[in-house]
Parts: sequence; structure tokens; C-alpha cells
Amino acid sequence: MPITNRTAPRNGPVLPSSSLLRPLPLGALRLAGGYWGEWQDRNAHTILQHCEDWMERIGWIGNFDAAAAGEPFTHSGIEFVDSEVYKLLEAMAWELGRSADPDLASRYERLVRRVAAAQSPDGYLHTSFGRPGQPARWSNFEWGHELYSMGHLIQAAVAQIRTAGSGPLVDVAVRVADHLVAVFGADGRQAVCGHPEIEPALVELGRATGDHRYTELARLFVERRGHGLLKPIEFGQEYFQDELPFREADVMRGHAVRALYLAAGAVDVAVETGDAELLRAAELQWERTVARRTYLTGAMGSHHQDESFGADFELPSDREYGETCAAIASNMLSWRLLLQTGDAKYADLIERTLYNAVMVAPREDGRAFFYANTLHQRVEGTVPPEDEVSARALASLRAPWFEVSCCPTNLARTLASVESVFATMTEHGLQLHQYGDYDIDVDLPGGGTAGFEVRSGWPFNGEVIVTATKSSETPLELRLRVPAWATTAELDTPDGHHRVAGGTSIAVDRIFNRGDRVTLTVPNRARITHPDPRIDALRGTVAIERGPLVYALESTDLGRAINDVVLLDEVALQDDGPDDVRVGIAVREAQTGSPLPYGAAVTETTFIDTVRLVPYSTWGNRGPSTMRVFLPTE
Amino acid sequence: MPITNRTAPRNGPVLPSSSLLRPLPLGALRLAGGYWGEWQDRNAHTILQHCEDWMERIGWIGNFDAAAAGEPFTHSGIEFVDSEVYKLLEAMAWELGRSADPDLASRYERLVRRVAAAQSPDGYLHTSFGRPGQPARWSNFEWGHELYSMGHLIQAAVAQIRTAGSGPLVDVAVRVADHLVAVFGADGRQAVCGHPEIEPALVELGRATGDHRYTELARLFVERRGHGLLKPIEFGQEYFQDELPFREADVMRGHAVRALYLAAGAVDVAVETGDAELLRAAELQWERTVARRTYLTGAMGSHHQDESFGADFELPSDREYGETCAAIASNMLSWRLLLQTGDAKYADLIERTLYNAVMVAPREDGRAFFYANTLHQRVEGTVPPEDEVSARALASLRAPWFEVSCCPTNLARTLASVESVFATMTEHGLQLHQYGDYDIDVDLPGGGTAGFEVRSGWPFNGEVIVTATKSSETPLELRLRVPAWATTAELDTPDGHHRVAGGTSIAVDRIFNRGDRVTLTVPNRARITHPDPRIDALRGTVAIERGPLVYALESTDLGRAINDVVLLDEVALQDDGPDDVRVGIAVREAQTGSPLPYGAAVTETTFIDTVRLVPYSTWGNRGPSTMRVFLPTE
Repeated sequence: MPITNRTAPRNGPVLPSSSLLRPLPLGALRLAGGYWGEWQDRNAHTILQHCEDWMERIGWIGNFDAAAAGEPFTHSGIEFVDSEVYKLLEAMAWELGRSADPDLASRYERLVRRVAAAQSPDGYLHTSFGRPGQPARWSNFEWGHELYSMGHLIQAAVAQIRTAGSGPLVDVAVRVADHLVAVFGADGRQAVCGHPEIEPALVELGRATGDHRYTELARLFVERRGHGLLKPIEFGQEYFQDELPFREADVMRGHAVRALYLAAGAVDVAVETGDAELLRAAELQWERTVARRTYLTGAMGSHHQDESFGADFELPSDREYGETCAAIASNMLSWRLLLQTGDAKYADLIERTLYNAVMVAPREDGRAFFYANTLHQRVEGTVPPEDEVSARALASLRAPWFEVSCCPTNLARTLASVESVFATMTEHGLQLHQYGDYDIDVDLPGGGTAGFEVRSGWPFNGEVIVTATKSSETPLELRLRVPAWATTAELDTPDGHHRVAGGTSIAVDRIFNRGDRVTLTVPNRARITHPDPRIDALRGTVAIERGPLVYALESTDLGRAINDVVLLDEVALQDDGPDDVRVGIAVREAQTGSPLPYGAAVTETTFIDTVRLVPYSTWGNRGPSTMRVFLPTE
Repeated sequence: MPITNRTAPRNGPVLPSSSLLRPLPLGALRLAGGYWGEWQDRNAHTILQHCEDWMERIGWIGNFDAAAAGEPFTHSGIEFVDSEVYKLLEAMAWELGRSADPDLASRYERLVRRVAAAQSPDGYLHTSFGRPGQPARWSNFEWGHELYSMGHLIQAAVAQIRTAGSGPLVDVAVRVADHLVAVFGADGRQAVCGHPEIEPALVELGRATGDHRYTELARLFVERRGHGLLKPIEFGQEYFQDELPFREADVMRGHAVRALYLAAGAVDVAVETGDAELLRAAELQWERTVARRTYLTGAMGSHHQDESFGADFELPSDREYGETCAAIASNMLSWRLLLQTGDAKYADLIERTLYNAVMVAPREDGRAFFYANTLHQRVEGTVPPEDEVSARALASLRAPWFEVSCCPTNLARTLASVESVFATMTEHGLQLHQYGDYDIDVDLPGGGTAGFEVRSGWPFNGEVIVTATKSSETPLELRLRVPAWATTAELDTPDGHHRVAGGTSIAVDRIFNRGDRVTLTVPNRARITHPDPRIDALRGTVAIERGPLVYALESTDLGRAINDVVLLDEVALQDDGPDDVRVGIAVREAQTGSPLPYGAAVTETTFIDTVRLVPYSTWGNRGPSTMRVFLPTE
């Protein structure tokens, strides 16, 4: 039974007006150190400033000042760099909602003022269009990213509403949204943006303000797409999902970030309008895309050329694109579907994607990022200069900033609000989807209170200890996800011991007294993972995983290139802790008896060694290396 | 011992001033039907007209008229479409050198007049640069393709010299070349073109005219490259081979056509200047590139994104780019190295590349072409409209014309002169490198005459019958290549019977009398080919080849998609002739027990059938299909 979510001024990024599971209010779950606590700190103290400094230095923030001044100016950066400033503002807002750091608050306010000053009197706001010497407004829906950029502005304003209730950025965003309603409403211009994003943004603004015109405009944008309103481009209409209406598609295709943002917006529209068919289309697309077009890390996007999904089972490791933003977008979709359905498979994918496809992006110091994320680095990357803007396509290590730099700011807003996907509540229940180290204190919708301390050492350890910090007063159903990667798990409660299967969830339903403890023990040991044999690129290989972490072999540890290795014996997998997972490796030299690498027969010679693997998300932190996740077997 | 090649007015595209093997003069080898005779006819009667009609219709020829008129005009097509007109002119010249068709001759002369009229008084000739409203001359070496286009003009003029001795296009090209010498000579502008091509063109013009200034300018262009004269682009300096001097590189990298044209030019310069180090660099690059970066078909280029070589053993079937022009360029290089070294491995690669990577391009009617050539078509292509220009990147069947249409005209010039790589001569010898059906009649450099009829039914049959049509008067060494794909072969001569190994050559040295017959019998049966296990994309697969032909499985024959197939039993390969090669196939359905295509174990169910394979070069001729060359094994 879906529950109705009253407008909650303090909340995370997504708050459907009804859902099976309800997001916790902002502040009800607080990280207490551990993996995510440390990364959220690094985001607050390093990444936010890093993004701001770069965008100040290369003029992306200055674009707003120049636009406000009213004189013709040379715009810095590609046409959608406004959106990077907005994503930073969103990240800052989430962080301010938690910490109220005065320095951050004043930086945020200054930045909002500079953005606000560039708004046109009619509400339009974009620094690349509509001024003398610039293309006209709405002259290029295919590539202009106008609605996309304004979508991110609206998302940033929603974060201000949800953390502060109101503020000057909210006023700016409402004027933007009102302008869009006037231009693109039912009787207005029949158009969609080449890059979806305005759709979820408008629904969320509708939810946060109670103004249904915004939701209705989002609905129009979702329904209009798929009818060829966008002009054909080299990559075809499917590049921007305009070849088929969303509700008729059964798999994602085209540009991965676009497809995933659109799906998130479609779910939002479906929920607000009670459109079960539209919601079902999103579930089907998720299901088939995850089954056939998703990497082991949860990454999506097989082609560099058009940043797109490949065909079914087209999942090359070496040419994986796997854009960081697509992983973030995948979690946006999975979270929305988890709220609606309660199905643990969505939480499983969020876990897999967060630890591997998202967190591979930042360098350990938070000052450089991957944009594309390969599972097989064939040649050592180059170290990008710390003070130059990098192109995204080059084989390089993590770079401090990019010409198209969507990923660092997207990561910043994700880290600033990451705990929002950890737990949910129902009338009399609390659901723990992601583990880590955190404290929960929340009043449940049906009455009663939930206070718990969760400690787990996740993702490196497998024991989740949940201790009640309050009496629940009334019976409370505490539900814990048992990860799909666990073949089995053990649950110890005040009422006894249970054995549970992986890929499910288990509930403890009782009146909790302060000090009551529930322990979920998941065997977190290195394991072998086999790919579906229909994945051509992975035939004859296996991967090593440990808990939610995918592991990788780096040349740094092997002492030579990793392209020619063979995993010697699956049984020889050794696990002496998360930092000491080892395998037996042979290095293969082949002879085909031909100048070409093809022959009637192939003979091989091998050289043998034992070598340590590292969590995939940390690869490249020790300097240039070659790396592979899937290891050929004998 | 290299021999010196006197200037020969009638010759094919390449005539080094010295070489171990000497090209036959134009007309000394004439096709007599068979595979190549039919395709050369189709080229003469269909493809040439097809190219001319398209370029007339979409204004690429009209650019020259507009440029000649002197008024500002809107240029049609991308900035290097001049080169397509030049490649057509080159193809027409080779065809006229053989057939003297009056209609073709008058079309050729009209086209030359229109080109000539656009030349500037100082010799510069390009329709995209230097006029009011156009970019300035030499303002964009990275992408402008000015020298590239003029290179193709010069090649077309060389074809006029070699077929007709002289003509108006030669005058135009000499004025162009003199202008380039003035602008880019030793004391001139220190620059190179982003796309090599001017280098082999200038050497050939130097050879054909005896003017060494052109060769010297080519030498300067080769030597200047690799020192960062081109501005950095997103794909890096290696995209246009400007990150490392040619003589220091040991493998090809970057844009495949550029790398191969450059290598061809470097060999030409090395030969004309006696630069053994430069020649050795080209041999090393060929060797390593063929061993690690070449497809089974001979195709080169692993990435769509930048049309580039991949890393070693990065040879995905499904994302193969394998541009038709790169295959043609590979043969340009192999032919040059064959002439210098006499090593049969170069002739072997020419054979493999011609039958598979080049001849997959044209549709069987010669009115549509592949640009990129995949070895694994995962989804059925769309049928491009017959009257519209196609984008090159879309998954489609062969298209009549492209926005960037380098491949059809390149194929036209290749087919018009294809027999030039079939045989060579030495002082007292004749070497047959490629088989087919043709007649040779030539006076040898050391005296004596060679007259032979060659009949083979190649590539479908394996018996090559060489019959003397003249007495050789003096002893003559007739040398026959034994293809590397043959494990063994039989040679019958008037002097007896011999058994010979594949990948070698065998000579018959005697005075030939009219009617003397030499028969080489090569077992032309379907065979299994194994890929080097270091090719990740091909692990656990095999291909089927028959003689020089690579075979493919098409969904048209299987009656369902081919992505999930498994080759059931290698022994079950049946060969009842070139049109009836069959294998046993299972279709696999896999279960991982997870929403993702990865799991602790994988179970499979299969469905079994027997199915016919087709020569890879003919795939797609029966309409949209899915296709794969490498078949997974059990």
C-alpha cells in the first residue's frame, strides 16, 4: 500500500507524493565516520572548493557576471557549463543542510547572487544564448542544452527548499519555471531538450512548491519525446531517445546519461499522475538494461563515440565508456523504483554502482576524477597536468578538470546527499538498504519513533550491528537487506538466530528497547564471478569480487603489463582481508606460426606468479598502470 | 640486388626508381574474366558513373565551377570533397589506359577542364579555402586537408602520365606541385598536413616527371612530422602521427588511414633517397602492426571514435571500424614493401586484405558501399535510402553515398588498377603474387620475353594453371607464391612433380616453350582458424576460412539472431564447395541467477541446427541481417 508523503520542508533530493517506502527526512540519518563519512568530509572540505576554484579560474562562474553586465562577451566553456555551477550549488546546499559551515554559507550566498544577477527580466536564464553575438534562445534543441541547464538550476533550488525552506535561488528557479510553463506549456512551443534533465527537476519543484503546473510541464516533455521533434543527427534519433515514446520502449538505448535522466523523470511523472503504464515501462527498461547492458560495476554505456549503450551483451571492458554521470543517473533511477516497489534488487544495484562505478571516479585526495571508467586499461595512462583542463577522451589518469566537466560536480552533489538512499520508512517500519556507519533518529509516519546506531565497517567487513538507541514505544518492523552477492547470511536478534538467503530482506518486528541489538553477518570473502557467456568480450574470463567491491589486477602489483595474464587456478584465490586478496597468475606468450595473430593452432608458454588484487575503485591511485577486472582462465 | 627502373611512360600507380622486384608495365597483364575481371568491368560500367553522378548531383563537382566563376559561393560538402573528384579522375585514367572508351574519355576530359578552371594563377587549387567568406589558405593544417586534397590531384595526374604520357591534368598538377615547393620548401613554411597523402603523391610525381624537387619536398614532409608541428587536438598528437618521428616508431597508431598513407610515403622517400633506416622503420611498423593490430580480414582500425588503431591485441569484432580506405592504404604499403624486399608475406596480406577487407565494401551491384566494416553485426542494419547521402557512423547496410565519402572513390581507383599488384618481374624472372584469370605478355629487363596465360578460378578454386603462350627464348625464372594459408601445395611442371610448403614461393627456371604448363594445386578447403588468446574479444572463438576467403554466419541462413550461437563441434565442418560450407550450431540461453549478467555460476540450455556460411565479403547482400565471423566454441 503506497503511503502519501506530506510536503516535508526538510528532505533529500527525491520526495514522491506517494510511495511504498518513504524517504527519511533530512538529518534523520547521520553518517558516523567510516567509508562514507570520510568521503562526505572530503567532499565538504576538498571537492566543493576544488570545483568552485576551477570554475572561477576558467570563467564558468564569470559567465554569469558578464551576462549580468549586459555587454557582449566571450563565453567561457562549452554551452552547458552553467549546469556545472548549478550542480555545485546543489552540492553546497546539501552540505549546508547538514553542517551550516559559515564560510561555505557565505560562498554559497555570493554564488547565488552572481547567478541571480544574470537572469533575464522574463525569467529566462542561460549565459550562452539570446544575447548579441550569441545564438538565439531555443534555436538548437538538439545540442543547446538550455532546458538541461535550467533543470539543474531547478534541482539546486529544490535543494535550497529542502534544506532551508526558501531562499533567493528558489525565487530565481520559480521565475525560470514559470517562464518555461509559458513558453512550452500545452499550447506553447512543441519541443523537447536534446538532453533530458528538466523532467525530474520540474516534478521535484512541483513537489517542493505544491505547484502542479511544473509537474504538468514535465509530463508534456516526457510525452512529447519519441515523436521525432528533434532533428536527426549523425548518431540517430535514439541518441536522445526521440525515436520511440518512453512508454513503448523496453530497453535503454542511445546516450546513457540522457536515457537514465529521462527514465528518472518518467518515473516521477508516472508517480505524480498515477500512470501505472509509464511506471511499468521504466521498470521493464531497468530490468532488461540491467540484464543485458550493464557492467559488473553497475556502470552503463559501452561506446565512447556517442557515449551510448551498446546492443545486448555488448559490454567491452577495454572500450567501456561507463561515464561517471551515467552511474549517478542509474542510481537516481534505481532509487525512485526502490521507493515505489520496495524491491531489494534496486538497492542491490545502487550498492554495486556506488562502490564501484561512482567511487572509482575520484582520486583518493578528491582533487582529480575519471570521466570514463574502463574495466581494462591496456596502456598506461598519462598523468594529466594539475593546472590544465583535460579533454575527456584521452587515455589518462584521473584529471583535475575537463573541458566537459559534468562528472566532478555530479559526484559532489551525490556525495553531499549520499546517505539519502541508505534507509526508508513506512507507517511502522524502518528499512535499511545500504550499510555503513550511521545513526538514525526519526519519528515514523504511523507514530512511534526509531532510534538506531548502525555500525558495519562496510564495505570491507561483513558484520552489521544495529543497536537501538531509543525505545520504539510501539512495535516497529526493522527490515534489513541481505545483499544479492551473499549466498547466505546470519541474523541474530534478541529473539534468536536466523539463517537467511542472499538477495532478500529480513525483518525484525518488535518493540525495540534501548540497547537491543540486531546483528546481520554476511560472509564477506573474495569470490569468483562468471560472466554470461553471451558477453563476447568476457568469454573465458572471471572476475574477483569481495562483498560489494569488484577487484582488479594492476600492473603496479604484477610488476609487468597485465594484458597477457591468465588466472591459474580458481581454487587458489586467497583472502586474508580486504587489502590482501591474492590470485595465482600466469603470463602467456602465444605463437600462431603466422605474421598475423591468427593461425591453424596456437602454442603458448607461461610464466607464473602470485599477485595481490586491489578494489577496482582505487585503481590508478598509485600512478600510471595497466589494469584489468576480468581475468582470462586457462 | 635491386634493379634500376628506367622511367616508364606506361605503368601502374607505383614505380620506384629502384626495387628488388619491378612492376610490370601497363597492359603487360590483362585480366581475362573471373572474379577480378567481373569486378573491374562493374567498376568501369557502374561504379565510375555512380561516383560521378553523385558528385554532380550534390555539388561536389560544381564547387570547381563556382570557384572558377570567382563569385562568393556556398561550398558543398565537407572541406576535402575535392579529393573525391580527384580519386574519380585517377580511377577514370586507369580505366582509359586499358579501354579507351570514347564516352569515358569525353567525360574525363570535361571533368579535367572543370577542375583546371578552378586553379588560382599561382598554382594553388582548393575549393574550400582562400576566397571571400572562406577560411584563409593554410589556416588549418590540423583539419583543413589542403595538402591531402592536392595530393590526390597529383596522384590523378600521375595516372594520366602513366597512361597517356601527358595531358592537361598533368599541367595542373605540376603547377600545384611547383606552388607547394615554393611555399613549403626547405626555407619555406615549416608545416605538415593533418592527413598524410601529399607524401607518396609528390614522390610519384617526381618519379613520373624526373623532377627531384617534388621528391625532396616529400622528404621534408616526412621528416617534419613527429615534432609537434600540428596543434594538439582531443585525440592527441598521435591521431596524425605527429607525436613521434616516423623513423623512431615501431608500430602504427592513431588514425589508421593517416598512419598507412604516411608509411607508404615514407617507403617512397626511403627508396628514392637510399634511406635504409627509414625503410626499416616501415618494415618494423608493418610487422608489429600486422602481428598485433590487424583483423583476420586484413582490416585495420579498432576504434570508431577517432578511426584509429587500438592498442596491441585490441581487436573487437563488434566495434571494429576497419575503414575500407584503411584496407586500401594497407595494400599501398604492402605493395611497396613487396617490391623492395620480395618477401611473400606482403603478397599474402595483400591477398587477404583485397578479398575480405576491401571487397566487403561494394554491394554486389556496385551501387552501394560499406564505410566501416564490422566482423560482428549485432543488430540488423537499416536500409539506407538510395537517393540520400548517409552518415557514416550509423549501423546500416551498404549506402549509395556518404557525407564523408572517401571509400567509394578509393575503391574505384583500386579496382581500376587492381591487376598492377598481381605480378612483378626481375632481370630474367617473372613473379606471380596474386592468382586469378589473366594473361601476361612482357619483355623482361634482362632480355627475353614472358608470355603466359594464368587460369585459376581464384578465390573459389585452388588449382592455378600457368600455360606459356610464347617461347621465352632464354631461361626464365617463373616464381609462384604458395599462400601462407595453405599447409602444403603441389607443383607440376614439365620437369616433374614437387611438394611445397605454404607461406613460401617456388620457382621453375627453364626455357619455356609455347604450351608448357605449370600447375600449382593448393588445397582450397574450409578450415578452422584460431585467434591468438591475447585478443580478449576473441577468446573462446574460432573462425572459418576457405582459401583466401574469410567466412561468416548470417542470420539470413540461421533464421534467427546470431549473437548467442556456439559452434558445436569443430570436426563437423562440412565443405561441399565454396557456396556450401556448413557448420553445426547451438543457440545458447544462459541464466546467472541474478538480475545482472554475472553470477556465481551460469547454466545454459541449447537448441541445435546446421547452417551454411557465406564468404564474409558478400554478407548483407540479401538484406538486413546480423552476422558474425568468429564463432564461440563450447
